[in-house]
Amino acid sequence: MTNPAIILVEPQMGENIGAAARAMFNFGLSDLRLVKPRDGWPSARATAMASGALEKMPPVRVFDTLAEAIADLQFVLATTARPREMVRQVYTAAGAAEAFRKRDAERQKTGYVFGGERAGLNNDDIALCHGALTIPTGSEFSSINLGQSVLLVSYEWLKSGDDTLPRVLSTNGSPPVPHDKLEEFFARLEDELDKHHFFNTAEQKPPMVRNLRSLFVRGDLTEQEVRTLHGVISALTGKKLQQ
Amino acid sequence: MTNPAIILVEPQMGENIGAAARAMFNFGLSDLRLVKPRDGWPSARATAMASGALEKMPPVRVFDTLAEAIADLQFVLATTARPREMVRQVYTAAGAAEAFRKRDAERQKTGYVFGGERAGLNNDDIALCHGALTIPTGSEFSSINLGQSVLLVSYEWLKSGDDTLPRVLSTNGSPPVPHDKLEEFFARLEDELDKHHFFNTAEQKPPMVRNLRSLFVRGDLTEQEVRTLHGVISALTGKKLQQ
Repeated sequence: MTNPAIILVEPQMGENIGAAARAMFNFGLSDLRLVKPRDGWPSARATAMASGALEKMPPVRVFDTLAEAIADLQFVLATTARPREMVRQVYTAAGAAEAFRKRDAERQKTGYVFGGERAGLNNDDIALCHGALTIPTGSEFSSINLGQSVLLVSYEWLKSGDDTLPRVLSTNGSPPVPHDKLEEFFARLEDELDKHHFFNTAEQKPPMVRNLRSLFVRGDLTEQEVRTLHGVISALTGKKLQQ
Repeated sequence: MTNPAIILVEPQMGENIGAAARAMFNFGLSDLRLVKPRDGWPSARATAMASGALEKMPPVRVFDTLAEAIADLQFVLATTARPREMVRQVYTAAGAAEAFRKRDAERQKTGYVFGGERAGLNNDDIALCHGALTIPTGSEFSSINLGQSVLLVSYEWLKSGDDTLPRVLSTNGSPPVPHDKLEEFFARLEDELDKHHFFNTAEQKPPMVRNLRSLFVRGDLTEQEVRTLHGVISALTGKKLQQ
């Protein structure tokens, strides 16, 4: 079973269980547990909504109480839309993922607990959990549903173990151009611009050259793109690049 | 209009446009633009799915081409499920939110561009965007739909400007207990345990006292909770707290 588990307490609609399954499995989670699903289990509507996720996941387990559903877990968080009258650690989805990763590294078993569509978790269920998890939304409008909540916590879980850089240059195999090739291109471009009387005066030339160079450097060009730009000059001037 | 805009290119199902509207509005975004929606606009199915979001948002604007839809924008990212044969900066949803926040601080207008449900964005549309945005998913299964993609980027946008701590203690108004009150509780507890012969030997007492103290300190108790614990001792011993 993957860690953490997703536990849905008294979910009402099979569609929402299916959406939750699909959402969690998208981000690598597959231990789904249900406490008293209203319409029983299995559910054809859940299977349809899960787009194949339920067939690929280990069997969903069904329990009569939350206490039984989390019996083997060592740290569980209750997902709640608003603060309750209870003293609790309240985590963001990212904070929860970080806490769960630390427990995971210590081989502890963890879980996210979600309430039913209408009323969420009751206070007795929340009291069994080690803390609460609340997803911040814009204040004027907030209607995150069960599937979306499961999606966001699962997304944060995957992200907390993912080392994808926030921004990378994807070059499709062509390496970024080394400076000498760029310099060669600049020299050719400026030579042709000179020949075509692009620079009105000798004083204008240095700043215009700097602007042109800066524009191309900023683009973080690949070798292939510089070859393409040479092709543009060849086409516009009718003169091939001298190799 | 709020920044950034969400631009859906040739979306097919009204339901998905509605889900996107609801998702973005949950996280404070309200500038929705459509390029050639298959079934026209407005859409009763979109309105139903948006759960009131479309009524509260500024009117959705419809365009014939992506170029027209982003005409006033200065920085746009194309959401794609997989890398394309193009040289691009590829952002995560969090990296994109950070980049957009910086542009927003400079009063630049920005947007997230999403393709239709079946095929996503075509390469001509992607070429108009300043970079790509790819949401990392678990490798074995990936079926994020349009509404979910809009949800995740909008969530990251709100989060990037949100200073909620990853974990806070919610105490329902009762302040964390100061140490002297805790010390008073420890003294009473240990005195009663002594009287009830809890400590078998004098050597056992110090480590057991340390363990008990550590257990209660770790709980980060509030003043109210310490009063409750005093009540527990009073009930178990039949002796009220001496004020």
